[in-house]
Amino acid sequence: MQRPEFELIDWIRGQVRDRGTVSLGIGDDAACLKPNPDRELLVATDMLMEGVHFEFSSATPQQAGRKALAVNLSDIAAMGGRATAAFVSVALPSDRGMQFARDVHTGLIELANDHDVILAGGDTNSWNGPLVINVAVLGEPWMPRPVSRKGAQPGDWLFVTGALGGSLVSGRHLNFPPRLAEAQRLVNLVEVHAMLDVSDGLAADLHHILKASRVGAILFEPDIPLTQSAKTVNDGRSPLMHGLSDGEDFELLFAVAPEAGRQLLSSWNMVTSLTRIGEISTELDCRLRRADGKMELLPPIGWTHRLGEAL
Amino acid sequence: MQRPEFELIDWIRGQVRDRGTVSLGIGDDAACLKPNPDRELLVATDMLMEGVHFEFSSATPQQAGRKALAVNLSDIAAMGGRATAAFVSVALPSDRGMQFARDVHTGLIELANDHDVILAGGDTNSWNGPLVINVAVLGEPWMPRPVSRKGAQPGDWLFVTGALGGSLVSGRHLNFPPRLAEAQRLVNLVEVHAMLDVSDGLAADLHHILKASRVGAILFEPDIPLTQSAKTVNDGRSPLMHGLSDGEDFELLFAVAPEAGRQLLSSWNMVTSLTRIGEISTELDCRLRRADGKMELLPPIGWTHRLGEAL
Repeated sequence: MQRPEFELIDWIRGQVRDRGTVSLGIGDDAACLKPNPDRELLVATDMLMEGVHFEFSSATPQQAGRKALAVNLSDIAAMGGRATAAFVSVALPSDRGMQFARDVHTGLIELANDHDVILAGGDTNSWNGPLVINVAVLGEPWMPRPVSRKGAQPGDWLFVTGALGGSLVSGRHLNFPPRLAEAQRLVNLVEVHAMLDVSDGLAADLHHILKASRVGAILFEPDIPLTQSAKTVNDGRSPLMHGLSDGEDFELLFAVAPEAGRQLLSSWNMVTSLTRIGEISTELDCRLRRADGKMELLPPIGWTHRLGEAL
Repeated sequence: MQRPEFELIDWIRGQVRDRGTVSLGIGDDAACLKPNPDRELLVATDMLMEGVHFEFSSATPQQAGRKALAVNLSDIAAMGGRATAAFVSVALPSDRGMQFARDVHTGLIELANDHDVILAGGDTNSWNGPLVINVAVLGEPWMPRPVSRKGAQPGDWLFVTGALGGSLVSGRHLNFPPRLAEAQRLVNLVEVHAMLDVSDGLAADLHHILKASRVGAILFEPDIPLTQSAKTVNDGRSPLMHGLSDGEDFELLFAVAPEAGRQLLSSWNMVTSLTRIGEISTELDCRLRRADGKMELLPPIGWTHRLGEAL
């Protein structure tokens, strides 16, 4: 009699596409990979819990698995890197059965295959609790050095990919495309001084860059790109407030020198939009410049419902 | 007002000893490490859940954190490797407070420091659920090639470190020493053909080696080293049965050529004992040779209470 875990593991192994970088993968005590000797190694890890990061009233098992990988791919993108291998640990609710377990992994493996990421190992458990998924992703920077959060300089232009706000309402937090291709293009076109992915909300995440870089910033209110759902959610909060604080956007927020910014604006031809939304200042605070030119202080408001926070 | 997660992260950062291999650690989207260009990269990951892998009726928060790292260090040891960096994700029960969170991390960080492993990143969450800890550990083999589970050859001698059985009863599963130093000594002394750490139980784990290596084995019943608790548990199961099937021993089980085996027996001077417990055979089954010379088939009995299983 085979234990259900082994059956699941055999099934996962059959789904995984190998690409030659893994000399020893699923089925031993540890995976063994060939590192790129010319690059440093990037490691991102995120734990997602049912009831906190997704609910099965609105998400499918596939979407839960997909999101667990996607948030890590977004982190690797934010470092200016590509993802190479993923390691997936799950605590599966024992009453939901094997098809549920396969569905969770299917959503994850499909996204992995889309981005040439190999599922190289993990840990499969079941319990009488909600679904918990932890994914650790290895990657490497496209350029010799990764893009950290520190490095923004006074005068730099601030950009964001895509549009912000309403991700939880629209369900976009479950199916957002990690901006790996956009990050690759960016770091190949210009020198990016600082970058992160917007997970806590634009205002909170901008403060992370400012704190790490020891600078301030001015955001141009009329230029902040808002999603359709940010504009139409009728909950008493303004579209701008949604764009500044909803979080889970998983768009790239970054700072580049003005000349690099001009170059980006003139040469950017990807479908994903790129918008200049502000600039880095010498004063150590963050301000919002309204359409009428008035300035106001912008605190690090963010999605406080979300308790998850990367180290 | 600072979110409790950030407070915990700042505290963790203060506890961590850096060793220069991490160029960018806690506090960015991903950690950045310098890989060893001469070695492949080992990656182990394990998820431990309260109520499955530990209970707070018998374990302290420190022990839970310690165990979450220790099982991964044991996996790296079983590959003939050393561990370099750990990534820790937690789902913290929100009603247990900050001291509990610190205690979990203290147990883990103390063990990491003992083995020169740097805590380079992770993910800190809280929820209304039990404690879940996922640890991913990076490492590298001491020799150019890691030791996998396949490679055992007919005629090889089978060895085990330490003694087996009763780990759950004695509490040893919470404070076992990962056999990293023993693994280092072993692979430096001889060529180890196949190795793993005994987590499911000697019988079940031996079958993993046999299946991967496509060989059989004979275990010498009188030679199997049993712990004091395996010998004294009075639950109707024999000491031998405890030694064969309890699991969570985290001792090294390995196969070497007879000549290498003789060399090990004559030169081994570590405190941890090394015992020859059997040999690899050509017949594709596993048999137990009793004290009176009688042979019987040994099925892959193991700790079926434990649902966790590494991919």
